[in-house]
Amino acid sequence: MAKIIKGGTVVTGSDIYEADILIEGEKIVSIADTIEKAEAEIIDAKGCYVFPGGIDPHTHLDMPFGGTVTADDFETGTRAAAFGGTTTIVDFCLTQKGKPLKEAVDMWHKKADGKAMIDYSFHLMISEMNDNVLNELPAIVQEQGITSLKLFMAYKNVFQVDDGTLFQTLTKAKELGALVQVHAENGDVIDLLVQKALQQGNTSPYYHAVTRPPEVEAEATGRAIAMAALADAPIYVVHVSCASAANKIKEARAQGLKVWGETCQQYLVLDVTDLQKSDFEGAKYVWSPPLREKWNQEELWAALRNGSLQTVGSDQCSFNFEGQKDLGKDDFTKIPNGGPLIEDRFSILYSEGVHKGRIGLNTFVNAVSTNAAKLFGLFPKKGTIAVGSDADIVVFNPNIERTLSASTHHMNVDYNPFEGMKVTGEPVVVLSRGEVLVKGKQFHGRKGRGQYISRQQFRQY
Amino acid sequence: MAKIIKGGTVVTGSDIYEADILIEGEKIVSIADTIEKAEAEIIDAKGCYVFPGGIDPHTHLDMPFGGTVTADDFETGTRAAAFGGTTTIVDFCLTQKGKPLKEAVDMWHKKADGKAMIDYSFHLMISEMNDNVLNELPAIVQEQGITSLKLFMAYKNVFQVDDGTLFQTLTKAKELGALVQVHAENGDVIDLLVQKALQQGNTSPYYHAVTRPPEVEAEATGRAIAMAALADAPIYVVHVSCASAANKIKEARAQGLKVWGETCQQYLVLDVTDLQKSDFEGAKYVWSPPLREKWNQEELWAALRNGSLQTVGSDQCSFNFEGQKDLGKDDFTKIPNGGPLIEDRFSILYSEGVHKGRIGLNTFVNAVSTNAAKLFGLFPKKGTIAVGSDADIVVFNPNIERTLSASTHHMNVDYNPFEGMKVTGEPVVVLSRGEVLVKGKQFHGRKGRGQYISRQQFRQY
Amino acid sequence: MAKIIKGGTVVTGSDIYEADILIEGEKIVSIADTIEKAEAEIIDAKGCYVFPGGIDPHTHLDMPFGGTVTADDFETGTRAAAFGGTTTIVDFCLTQKGKPLKEAVDMWHKKADGKAMIDYSFHLMISEMNDNVLNELPAIVQEQGITSLKLFMAYKNVFQVDDGTLFQTLTKAKELGALVQVHAENGDVIDLLVQKALQQGNTSPYYHAVTRPPEVEAEATGRAIAMAALADAPIYVVHVSCASAANKIKEARAQGLKVWGETCQQYLVLDVTDLQKSDFEGAKYVWSPPLREKWNQEELWAALRNGSLQTVGSDQCSFNFEGQKDLGKDDFTKIPNGGPLIEDRFSILYSEGVHKGRIGLNTFVNAVSTNAAKLFGLFPKKGTIAVGSDADIVVFNPNIERTLSASTHHMNVDYNPFEGMKVTGEPVVVLSRGEVLVKGKQFHGRKGRGQYISRQQFRQY
Amino acid sequence: MAKIIKGGTVVTGSDIYEADILIEGEKIVSIADTIEKAEAEIIDAKGCYVFPGGIDPHTHLDMPFGGTVTADDFETGTRAAAFGGTTTIVDFCLTQKGKPLKEAVDMWHKKADGKAMIDYSFHLMISEMNDNVLNELPAIVQEQGITSLKLFMAYKNVFQVDDGTLFQTLTKAKELGALVQVHAENGDVIDLLVQKALQQGNTSPYYHAVTRPPEVEAEATGRAIAMAALADAPIYVVHVSCASAANKIKEARAQGLKVWGETCQQYLVLDVTDLQKSDFEGAKYVWSPPLREKWNQEELWAALRNGSLQTVGSDQCSFNFEGQKDLGKDDFTKIPNGGPLIEDRFSILYSEGVHKGRIGLNTFVNAVSTNAAKLFGLFPKKGTIAVGSDADIVVFNPNIERTLSASTHHMNVDYNPFEGMKVTGEPVVVLSRGEVLVKGKQFHGRKGRGQYISRQQFRQY
Repeated sequence: MAKIIKGGTVVTGSDIYEADILIEGEKIVSIADTIEKAEAEIIDAKGCYVFPGGIDPHTHLDMPFGGTVTADDFETGTRAAAFGGTTTIVDFCLTQKGKPLKEAVDMWHKKADGKAMIDYSFHLMISEMNDNVLNELPAIVQEQGITSLKLFMAYKNVFQVDDGTLFQTLTKAKELGALVQVHAENGDVIDLLVQKALQQGNTSPYYHAVTRPPEVEAEATGRAIAMAALADAPIYVVHVSCASAANKIKEARAQGLKVWGETCQQYLVLDVTDLQKSDFEGAKYVWSPPLREKWNQEELWAALRNGSLQTVGSDQCSFNFEGQKDLGKDDFTKIPNGGPLIEDRFSILYSEGVHKGRIGLNTFVNAVSTNAAKLFGLFPKKGTIAVGSDADIVVFNPNIERTLSASTHHMNVDYNPFEGMKVTGEPVVVLSRGEVLVKGKQFHGRKGRGQYISRQQFRQY
Repeated sequence: MAKIIKGGTVVTGSDIYEADILIEGEKIVSIADTIEKAEAEIIDAKGCYVFPGGIDPHTHLDMPFGGTVTADDFETGTRAAAFGGTTTIVDFCLTQKGKPLKEAVDMWHKKADGKAMIDYSFHLMISEMNDNVLNELPAIVQEQGITSLKLFMAYKNVFQVDDGTLFQTLTKAKELGALVQVHAENGDVIDLLVQKALQQGNTSPYYHAVTRPPEVEAEATGRAIAMAALADAPIYVVHVSCASAANKIKEARAQGLKVWGETCQQYLVLDVTDLQKSDFEGAKYVWSPPLREKWNQEELWAALRNGSLQTVGSDQCSFNFEGQKDLGKDDFTKIPNGGPLIEDRFSILYSEGVHKGRIGLNTFVNAVSTNAAKLFGLFPKKGTIAVGSDADIVVFNPNIERTLSASTHHMNVDYNPFEGMKVTGEPVVVLSRGEVLVKGKQFHGRKGRGQYISRQQFRQY
Repeated sequence: MAKIIKGGTVVTGSDIYEADILIEGEKIVSIADTIEKAEAEIIDAKGCYVFPGGIDPHTHLDMPFGGTVTADDFETGTRAAAFGGTTTIVDFCLTQKGKPLKEAVDMWHKKADGKAMIDYSFHLMISEMNDNVLNELPAIVQEQGITSLKLFMAYKNVFQVDDGTLFQTLTKAKELGALVQVHAENGDVIDLLVQKALQQGNTSPYYHAVTRPPEVEAEATGRAIAMAALADAPIYVVHVSCASAANKIKEARAQGLKVWGETCQQYLVLDVTDLQKSDFEGAKYVWSPPLREKWNQEELWAALRNGSLQTVGSDQCSFNFEGQKDLGKDDFTKIPNGGPLIEDRFSILYSEGVHKGRIGLNTFVNAVSTNAAKLFGLFPKKGTIAVGSDADIVVFNPNIERTLSASTHHMNVDYNPFEGMKVTGEPVVVLSRGEVLVKGKQFHGRKGRGQYISRQQFRQY
Repeated sequence: MAKIIKGGTVVTGSDIYEADILIEGEKIVSIADTIEKAEAEIIDAKGCYVFPGGIDPHTHLDMPFGGTVTADDFETGTRAAAFGGTTTIVDFCLTQKGKPLKEAVDMWHKKADGKAMIDYSFHLMISEMNDNVLNELPAIVQEQGITSLKLFMAYKNVFQVDDGTLFQTLTKAKELGALVQVHAENGDVIDLLVQKALQQGNTSPYYHAVTRPPEVEAEATGRAIAMAALADAPIYVVHVSCASAANKIKEARAQGLKVWGETCQQYLVLDVTDLQKSDFEGAKYVWSPPLREKWNQEELWAALRNGSLQTVGSDQCSFNFEGQKDLGKDDFTKIPNGGPLIEDRFSILYSEGVHKGRIGLNTFVNAVSTNAAKLFGLFPKKGTIAVGSDADIVVFNPNIERTLSASTHHMNVDYNPFEGMKVTGEPVVVLSRGEVLVKGKQFHGRKGRGQYISRQQFRQY
């Protein structure tokens, strides 16, 4: 049955206008000043913004980490995402050295198949570079449509790659039309700072931040950019947490280099003092890079506003406070890294960004959806409200005030890092490919309806 | 009669998709995958891009200069603009010290009324700052909708203002919701370099460039930005010609300042050697700032691509080679400054930018139309293809190859600075408020149909 | 009678070593491990540093300002300087528009002749540029040996010059072998900020700082450098007060430009909160540029340490608190600008710099003496301890602790801005051209013994 | 017998003056306007500069490399150094993983003992970091007086260390008062570029430069500085070859970081086109980093002039063209890296620097001698002309013109990279600790007279 979203203010990466939207099947087929159609279901959007569904380019669902596994899988995670206004995710498929890439991709398909409530795709982690990997990559990129490759410059002896691997991946990615992503922190230095902290008996969560200072992020960011410049390949820096790393991206872009950067809502609104909370509460905020001194926040907002950073991902990677985070009670290095972040990304960015006057509406849509679609080969199927695009739409009431809390969130985890935070605005209706997933605070989707998306090669718009 | 633009690829500042567009009266009322409507006029756009009409934020029509007047007025100038794909201009209303602002605005209305073929608005030049000006400004900005004020840091003893005037204007503009624009060149230094050149007998057109080196532009750009920062006011730098000035804007934006910059197609494709052409031909390229060394071009393209510069204006200000430019045969300072540039802006930016792979389609639309609309309070009436917007539309065939020439252009002037340049792509149909102005290489508009647009206050999107 | 300075540690801009120094007449004639000479007067320097006499490149003695005149003239000022370890000053000769330069120079000679206790020279202020000035300058520079020209970018309608005057002066100075100095603050903007403050009833001393923010200094600094670069002339920025202005100099030097900068001890140890002292005490700290936020201090120290700033001047310009400073009791703009700073420059720089580990001994000597000698054509007559140089020498005991105070200082003024500050180190013997001026806390010099120094043309070492 | 250097112009890092110098034994004991002493040997310096003996902080004598050994050992190398005006060298002691540091130091002592003609010291290479190294280091630094530690960021699988080793070394060095030096090139990337070049059949010497582009040097320079900043340790970057690497040092210094940089005369006067010489002649110019595009030269001179780079080393590492360089006839990676550079450093820096007006005399002395003495704990024993210092002195005739050539040089190698270059100025007398080594173009020294110097801990002057 056709649907009409009536009377809202449509906002895209560039436009703001009042119109009705006609959805037939999974697609947007018409946008007009007034649309009437017998038998169409009417979705009232009066007084609301009509945004493209959010795209979260950075999630870790059903991910093993240090002997445990994330609290949220593709079922609970995508359901929570939908409640929050996110209708597409790109999850990180982890690979293992010495094993075929295809094996990892197959495993990730298995994790998502039959569970995902919204559409999804995968980035592929590169953990080594050799003839096997080089031989396998073309099929992965071109046949599977996995057009983004992720490398870690941190997590020594676990995920960390050396500069040679990074450079080779950049060179190969360029050839294949894929975009390289980096987790930019200098793992060698972190490793030594961690050893020193432990030797000195500094085991509390706060030392997670102390042992990963901004300098190690800025250095690695600059290094990754230098290698991309040398390979003449585009590069995307994930979860930029601080001004000094953002500055490396700004300077590179000012020189005309093909560099893009993502930050996360937690870096925009939380700060390092959260890691100092008593009763081990700091552990709830342990992820990498760590939270920074508060003054960095306005610098990151400015970077979003002026286009130095392009996207906001969540870096969703949830672990329960009890039973998981507390593995590190006596040693911060044992705290599983990550947090429940997938659900509130959209609302926090709107409330703290648009509502508080830090960014405009178009910038918001670009950061929460459109730019990720463009960078990761999902556009214009995803990431916009336009004729022919998937009807992934969020009807957003900008006037509702509410409080974020674990008691009301939909993630499968026992705490919320934004507990008690007041936000203005709420996704009141969420559609994915024309199907209403969320309405009246109820979930109308179903397990497994989410589809895998084979993505296009990298291009610039 | 309604019109349907059928089968084209619609491109906005953010989107690219295939759709039909229904126009009723002056407005776009529907965009859909297929639109059928009895009695509607069909405009075939198959194989074409459907762009928002170009907005030229920088024109000088019917402008007196050094005892002569520009060759193009609002009739010939706007007709040529329409042929080139530009459907809105913002012209500079020049004021005189000691006279009411209102008098100048009235005069400019008189120049345009009954002549303009496309819609237009005015920027207001500020030539002095005193109680009279301060008293008059609120009405000009708020009632006339002239929400942009232009100051010259060059042309000593003519247009040039001192820093106090600039700072006061910035402060007042912020209060009124207007955007300050600056012509950024250090006029004091230019004046001395000119005197020296003439004393040394250096009178040829090339010395126009020698006496206005990039340093004077970069210095003034930095100074204007510093004063805007101090006044906490937004600022827009017109006709950025070189890398060193663009860098000042980049750095300011990277610091989060509210700074925007415009370049012009001539700086993107011509260079200082054109001023050295024999037989006084160099005079055809005399405008300010002057053309620069060729290497600056790629830096300016990179600035457009990465968002450091936002708009491309033409700085249209045409004088005939014979009878006007030749006033300076024996003294380059007597050459009327400016060129016939309004017509080819759109096509050159497409051909050299999009066709040659330097910028993407969305960036093109932003630079040629959308960003100017947003910065100058014309959006979303102008600057996009969206339901509710004016039907200012260019159907652009990207495959046509043609040669720019004075023999075929529509400006009322005897030369074309791009003479002989091959471009790919042509505006084949141009509509303004739903009316076909250009089709089949014929002009269908009429004198006086263009409307004055009272603009909105400055805001960020 | 010959003198031998025995047993001290000689420190120059580059060296540190133990040796005896033999002085015959006015000159150093021998430096050796041990010098014995019958009938020579022995000055015991055991446990002391033996430094070149300080050179203060920035003083205003016997200067009229706003209807009053500085509290110190060439007699009291140079006597205090000598007590402080300074054996040469370069004072600013102020000119008046429309009057011959020679007249001003003659007047300055009259002020100093018969009064100065130490050697001195003059910088010449340029207040306008025209044929008269251009015609007079060669004789001033070459015959009078006044090889430095000072311009004010601030003090609108008083001293302030426009950019054309600055640029012409730079061009002429280069031709004549003179160094241009600038007081870099944007006077136009200051003028407006002052008007606004007064209109709002903000009349206390603190508003002196509010109306001269760092941005106006940084802007003017950048502008002056840009003009020097264009003229290919060397430039020297006086009294740099803040990090943002120092950064302009750093960046210019990093690009290879011929730019040098001076800071003053007050910017290194005092801050803007001093202007907020109650009971109008803030007026004691009113000078231009104003004191800055405290964090700037370490940036300025770093600039000295790394060579971005080269000299420390005092900007001596004393006015009594009672009877002079209080002219501005009800209006900060009426407070005579300046302070009693000539005496403590040397000791503060040693104590806060060397003693506290911020700069090394050689850097200290360069900043307090050698660099000024080199930049202003006094070297090697002044500014070092070397065979053939004038015996201007400070025997400095680095272990004495004392407290700065108006009750013990030698300036002819009723307050000391460093009142109560503890310093380590004291000039125990001060010689000028071989003559002991200060010893045993007593003054042994006499009025008029100081000589005018005709300086050499600018060169780089 | 005492010696008197008569009538010369003494130049130090700060001073320039005419004086006689009296030497007794190994030391300078007196400097005076005129020195007369019966029985003293008179060295006539009239018309000459009297400079401190050169200090070359970067030599590789008797060094094994890829199955061969350098053509010059401590005998031939130091003899040539003396002819060139260099009286002290600091050679790199290479260590091997898994072997005691002491073993390497002992071996280096054996290489030098009984052979060196001038004084020498050793930097110690760090090839790994572990408990053995940490335990051994204090004795090496403090007892042996080896207060500088060198790490390679290039030469993958040979000398290259990872970032952890570098960071640990910086931390330890700071604790011990040693200065860390880095060879800054990203070896991982070079390794891949080399593999690719060879795969493509690009085997000629020019590909040595192609596979080590400036970006790999700039990146590694920035990374090393970042790690030093994090460790709050001083760092010294050896052989800076290009503007982009020099810029990293400039920016760091401008931020107040403790960073110093060395360039070499070959980067100041030769360029990448030398590697393209026919008949395999390019192999004569194969060293790392490689020669760069010519425009970098003036940037490096500016960096020396403005103090961004402090020293000029030679990176002496000679291999014969026949029999050694030709090992790489068919494969540039087999060409032994390095060149005969120790002899002409002093004269080239004077001729191209001072004589051609790029740097002043004091800057020359600092770069060729004083700064190295200060940074490496040799000052004031070495690096200056001052009472109490070693009488290491070069009497330099600035008027002699001569041509550099293998046919006249004193290095034990069959070519000279500066063959045919004309220089102005020659060291006519060279003294080491009071002993005349070179005079009348004859060598008067003897094997083994050179002494090992135990150096002081790092300090700032």
